[in-house]
Amino acid sequence: MITDLHTVPGFVFNGFSAGLKKNNQLDLAIIHAEKPCAAAAAFTRNLVVAEPVKVCKKQMEDGLIQTVVINSKNANACTGELGKQAVYDEIKRTSSIFHVAEKDVFIASTGVIGRPFPITQVLNGITLAANGLENTEKSSDATARAIMTTDTKPKGASFTFSLGEQTIHIGGIAKGSGMIHPNMGTMLSFIITDLNIKPEVLKVALNKAVDRSFNMISIDGDTSTNDTVLVMANGKAANDLIDSTSHQHYAKVEEELTRICIDLGQTIVDDGEGITKMITFEVKGLPEEEDCRKIIRTLSTSLLVKTAFFGKDPNWGRLFAAAGRAGVNFDPDKVDLFMGQNDELCLLKTGQPEELDEALADEILSKRDVKVKFDFNQGKAHAIGWGSDLSYDYVKINAEYTT
Amino acid sequence: MITDLHTVPGFVFNGFSAGLKKNNQLDLAIIHAEKPCAAAAAFTRNLVVAEPVKVCKKQMEDGLIQTVVINSKNANACTGELGKQAVYDEIKRTSSIFHVAEKDVFIASTGVIGRPFPITQVLNGITLAANGLENTEKSSDATARAIMTTDTKPKGASFTFSLGEQTIHIGGIAKGSGMIHPNMGTMLSFIITDLNIKPEVLKVALNKAVDRSFNMISIDGDTSTNDTVLVMANGKAANDLIDSTSHQHYAKVEEELTRICIDLGQTIVDDGEGITKMITFEVKGLPEEEDCRKIIRTLSTSLLVKTAFFGKDPNWGRLFAAAGRAGVNFDPDKVDLFMGQNDELCLLKTGQPEELDEALADEILSKRDVKVKFDFNQGKAHAIGWGSDLSYDYVKINAEYTT
Repeated sequence: MITDLHTVPGFVFNGFSAGLKKNNQLDLAIIHAEKPCAAAAAFTRNLVVAEPVKVCKKQMEDGLIQTVVINSKNANACTGELGKQAVYDEIKRTSSIFHVAEKDVFIASTGVIGRPFPITQVLNGITLAANGLENTEKSSDATARAIMTTDTKPKGASFTFSLGEQTIHIGGIAKGSGMIHPNMGTMLSFIITDLNIKPEVLKVALNKAVDRSFNMISIDGDTSTNDTVLVMANGKAANDLIDSTSHQHYAKVEEELTRICIDLGQTIVDDGEGITKMITFEVKGLPEEEDCRKIIRTLSTSLLVKTAFFGKDPNWGRLFAAAGRAGVNFDPDKVDLFMGQNDELCLLKTGQPEELDEALADEILSKRDVKVKFDFNQGKAHAIGWGSDLSYDYVKINAEYTT
Repeated sequence: MITDLHTVPGFVFNGFSAGLKKNNQLDLAIIHAEKPCAAAAAFTRNLVVAEPVKVCKKQMEDGLIQTVVINSKNANACTGELGKQAVYDEIKRTSSIFHVAEKDVFIASTGVIGRPFPITQVLNGITLAANGLENTEKSSDATARAIMTTDTKPKGASFTFSLGEQTIHIGGIAKGSGMIHPNMGTMLSFIITDLNIKPEVLKVALNKAVDRSFNMISIDGDTSTNDTVLVMANGKAANDLIDSTSHQHYAKVEEELTRICIDLGQTIVDDGEGITKMITFEVKGLPEEEDCRKIIRTLSTSLLVKTAFFGKDPNWGRLFAAAGRAGVNFDPDKVDLFMGQNDELCLLKTGQPEELDEALADEILSKRDVKVKFDFNQGKAHAIGWGSDLSYDYVKINAEYTT
């Protein structure tokens, strides 16, 4: 049960059935705050974007959001003027049902693209939800389930941390399994917290956090039209207002926001379509962090690397060759490559293969969690990312999923 | 039977078994010209390159090659000083056995990387080949077979064309199925012709040809450490020497060289690991040709696009979303998208989905050859590329192939 939203005071939420999915499955989620919250969002970098993304970029301008409406099953993308009008209709209905300003409403959609948006059902759903919001374990779980598409399970993360004498609560939910990639593939995440922070500072922290978490996960290299991460902070914790990035507590906030984004990102990779392995890629020893990230993105999207992990093959050749085509300049003769949580299996030393300890390789590769570490030994930058293998089931799920 | 080399006068060749592969399979190929030929080569752009590639970049400096030795089974990559020494040993032995200058020898290898190179067997193979070269249909076929790795069939192409009153013969062989991608994945191709041309002009023509052929095919997005395309022209056709790119016949030569590279490239895609569909991507209507190519490379390597074709799904949403993340700037509201050899199925018109003709879509997608065309309607550039679908068998072949 995903009880993570329940841990944060000052919010109510629930998941509903608006009749978009078959058999009365949950398909509409609403998260509502007692009062407008400081909010920040990160959106897909795809040029082809869904209508709610276009509209909500504007909704974010004043950095305040009070009510979020999310539907699954239909992405409201490539739906033209009718699709855009539907988003405004959703905003209007939400505003009148929950008594919030239109400018403080946020809309997100996920599902198939290019199909007419079922606006009547969604509007009816919003109306029916009027008295259904609460802050319970059950409503938290229903909210997480209502945003699922091909996900096999709902996803959430939460924890508390201290700022001076105050305890801060933070909790979030996420969805997404196919199309997950740097730049955020069909991926939605909603994070709520009682932190007291200015919107513009929250935005800086979220961008840093997303770059090191959601933008460093990959299942299949595709990014979607709808990807969105939203964080809402209601200030109820009454910590000293974080009003700039030079505030004494800012670094801690950025760190904890990054942590929850990594936690949520990992739940997405872990539920990747048809995966049998969850791979952590660590790259160090290059001059620039962006170069480390480029190498990770090439590794984590290489089909040959992914199928090698599915086949439990310690194929350093595919890893090394993928690094070599990442568009990053390095000296191959300085490269070390390791596998295992503690780098216990050395595969390459200064660019040359080590004799393979097959028993140790078998042991490492028979686990679900595998770590790969490149040390280029030619700089001080460092990055981490997460990926998965590629299995028969990935092909099956994606060959059979209908447009 | 691959008889394509047989069509070109002035060359002898054959495939041999040097004992690298099991069961006396062919694993060593030699192509030898009567005299040093004008030659040009294009190599992998991977930073991690095999030893023969390092050495042969230098061998190409004077633009003359007479004898080529290619082995399969072992790529001689990540093999360090011993690997490099092996290449020099191969050159020496070839020089003494075939009475050619060391500087006119070209070596290529393909197979697994990071394994000690079986130099003794290869040298014995070269010696044994001394009296085995001939220009026959049988020796052409054996040459094409000896360079295969996971290929399911040997690959070749040939034709003649006219330059003024002369008939020019051109024929080539190729190998490669996994790891095929722009920048040339584990892909070898050797082209011979009786054309009379200066090496430096041949080099310009080959680069143009490779950019529009081998660099525009993709099976899995990975590039290898060993990729090489070599063309040798012995001048026997006695056409007026093509001595500059402004020669009256240069344009025709570039066109025909591009044609044979496309023919050979298509045989590689067609034999892609586990493919059931061969997809031609045409992109037009952007300001720059390189932008058209970027879009094609993103489309042809998208897992979601590839699995959709395997599932026979006319999934314009995945195609459109892949185009949107290609890193090319365009206005989504101007985009048209078609499927079918004659663009008979319109999927998107000015960025909006058309009503789907399911019967027509079924008919188009049940064929092995499928064409996809994007018209961005915002420029005059144009490009074509080739890709494949992604099947269960791709995963199986690559999960089980051992390092």
